[in-house]
Amino acid sequence: MSEKMEQIEAWLRKQEGRFAYIADPTNVFYLTHFKCDPHERFLGLFLFPDDEPFLICPELEVGQAQASDFGHEVIGYRDDQDPWDSVKKALSGRHAAFSKVFIEPSTLPYNKALALKAIDAQIVFQSIENFLAGMRNIKDASELAAMKKAGEVADYAVKLGIDAIKKGRTETAIIAEIEHELAKQGYSEMAFDTMVLAGENTAKPHGYPGNRQIREGDFVLFDLGVVIDGYCSDITRTVCYKHASDEQYKIYETTLQANLTAIKAVRQGLRIGDLDIVARKVITDAGYGDYFTHRLGHGLGLGEHEQPSMSAANNKTLTTGMVFTIEPGIYVPEIGGVRIEDDVYLNENGPETLTHYPKKLQIIS
Amino acid sequence: MSEKMEQIEAWLRKQEGRFAYIADPTNVFYLTHFKCDPHERFLGLFLFPDDEPFLICPELEVGQAQASDFGHEVIGYRDDQDPWDSVKKALSGRHAAFSKVFIEPSTLPYNKALALKAIDAQIVFQSIENFLAGMRNIKDASELAAMKKAGEVADYAVKLGIDAIKKGRTETAIIAEIEHELAKQGYSEMAFDTMVLAGENTAKPHGYPGNRQIREGDFVLFDLGVVIDGYCSDITRTVCYKHASDEQYKIYETTLQANLTAIKAVRQGLRIGDLDIVARKVITDAGYGDYFTHRLGHGLGLGEHEQPSMSAANNKTLTTGMVFTIEPGIYVPEIGGVRIEDDVYLNENGPETLTHYPKKLQIIS
Repeated sequence: MSEKMEQIEAWLRKQEGRFAYIADPTNVFYLTHFKCDPHERFLGLFLFPDDEPFLICPELEVGQAQASDFGHEVIGYRDDQDPWDSVKKALSGRHAAFSKVFIEPSTLPYNKALALKAIDAQIVFQSIENFLAGMRNIKDASELAAMKKAGEVADYAVKLGIDAIKKGRTETAIIAEIEHELAKQGYSEMAFDTMVLAGENTAKPHGYPGNRQIREGDFVLFDLGVVIDGYCSDITRTVCYKHASDEQYKIYETTLQANLTAIKAVRQGLRIGDLDIVARKVITDAGYGDYFTHRLGHGLGLGEHEQPSMSAANNKTLTTGMVFTIEPGIYVPEIGGVRIEDDVYLNENGPETLTHYPKKLQIIS
Repeated sequence: MSEKMEQIEAWLRKQEGRFAYIADPTNVFYLTHFKCDPHERFLGLFLFPDDEPFLICPELEVGQAQASDFGHEVIGYRDDQDPWDSVKKALSGRHAAFSKVFIEPSTLPYNKALALKAIDAQIVFQSIENFLAGMRNIKDASELAAMKKAGEVADYAVKLGIDAIKKGRTETAIIAEIEHELAKQGYSEMAFDTMVLAGENTAKPHGYPGNRQIREGDFVLFDLGVVIDGYCSDITRTVCYKHASDEQYKIYETTLQANLTAIKAVRQGLRIGDLDIVARKVITDAGYGDYFTHRLGHGLGLGEHEQPSMSAANNKTLTTGMVFTIEPGIYVPEIGGVRIEDDVYLNENGPETLTHYPKKLQIIS
């Protein structure tokens, strides 16, 4: 039994919960180290305050579940069987003193909640998400080690991308160069679709790379991350190809100041929203406020986006052990966009960046 | 207004539905050609029987939504705004004669259903999923064209992979070769994580590629697909490296016969479950019934897994215009596994495979 599962069980006792039904594959991995992406199939980890946990997964994953850290009853089902029959049966043999059942409401599909309710209409749903997110927020030593490595490899990937910039080369060709070189060195899992954008495409914060070729005077933006032992990095760097206009310099320097100012402001106990506010102020003061169209960043870990959300409205506070991104951006439709993103770990003494690729504006020749 | 959105509206009129709330990004793309992966952010397409549709998406995606085929009101929200305020406001200006609201219960998160209900407690949820899946099941000419192309590129990708087999080369290195070569030619979107497995790893139908090196006598299994204009292909081929044992031959030939028998059985009006049954019979008769641990296949289109599910329990019937996979497999722990998968389109005359890479057992030297 992992320490993390024990934490959940203790919490369930305190909450007088009947059980927790964890369906999100990432949370299942967090608690058991069982890696399973069941697509539309059923996956469920059931934890109890005072009874044996069980895990239900597709038959063909049972062996891997049994080899994981879970260490309790694993129930498989075949494609022609209804996994809810197994849920019902396994639940019927366990204590049911309380009615509160803890679920993940922001990811659990509506029909799965209904199916659980159909087993017992007495069930009252409550959310375990904040508790789980709180656990995941605070990284332990082994998680931090994976994230540091993921940060290092992300730095290296940016270097590969910048080295691959050549006149006429397309965005997707540069992505292929980066990923091929990474894969050759055994880093084949990216945290999300690698983004390389050039010229006017950089003005779309969520653009899709395509056949746009590198031209002189382009901003070239890299946004990428890798996965090490399940943990993600997420870095963004922007460079100029051949030359930069005065306006491009100003956009870049403003973004960089926002990035540096926010990182410097990181400290235990700070209201999280204030971090967005200090970064945004730098950009607004420079006249680009309307062009910073997203939040400052997001938590990072097993998920490429997790809590906390680094947005102005977030009233929670920074806590030692958190890892999050700081990624201010300015996107000017006629000129292009710049985003500079680092992964920041709040250690006992203050902010520690996990991404280190240099941030001074590079003009690639 | 796309023809597909009109179909939904007509259906809503017939159902006396108040509106449909489409949240699944793939369904939104299907209906509007607006490509948006909002992660944990809010995306909602609202369609009405007799009123103007609206679409709510992150502020930074508004431009792309407006440039899509949607052609109606697009409402953006920033990270510090609650999109449900916009939903409430937009709904308040539209007809509300009925209480039935159509949602996607198997993907819509529980908390989004609750949020909708909080706007109007009169709302009664019903599912639009079968209707949408039925629409998506039947491919029109432009969808088929994309899928044919996706099949061709998948054939080519298998060829690249087989050409990359070399003694001592790892599974992940072969994946890197395939994807690098594809990306150089502009095919950078894979339908799912490319799978190359060797030796004992092939016995895990959902194994994860790693640093296992190719050795003599290995089965080497390729399972991959590409995305063309949003549409997926999905092919599996298995070869032997250097030599094959009698048992390996038998496993391979049995799998191949199951694949061919099932494809030959495809015809308009056939009960879908019967296709699984005829393929499974071939494998069971050869003594490997216990080693075919998954369903025969699945529908294919914008999703790498969609309806229909080709499992023995499926009582629905095959219909002209469907595209689905036929992928029997035999997985013997001590020896390895074989899976042979094709994408099959049911045209007016019968089955038409969209994947064409040869299926005779290849011994790679």
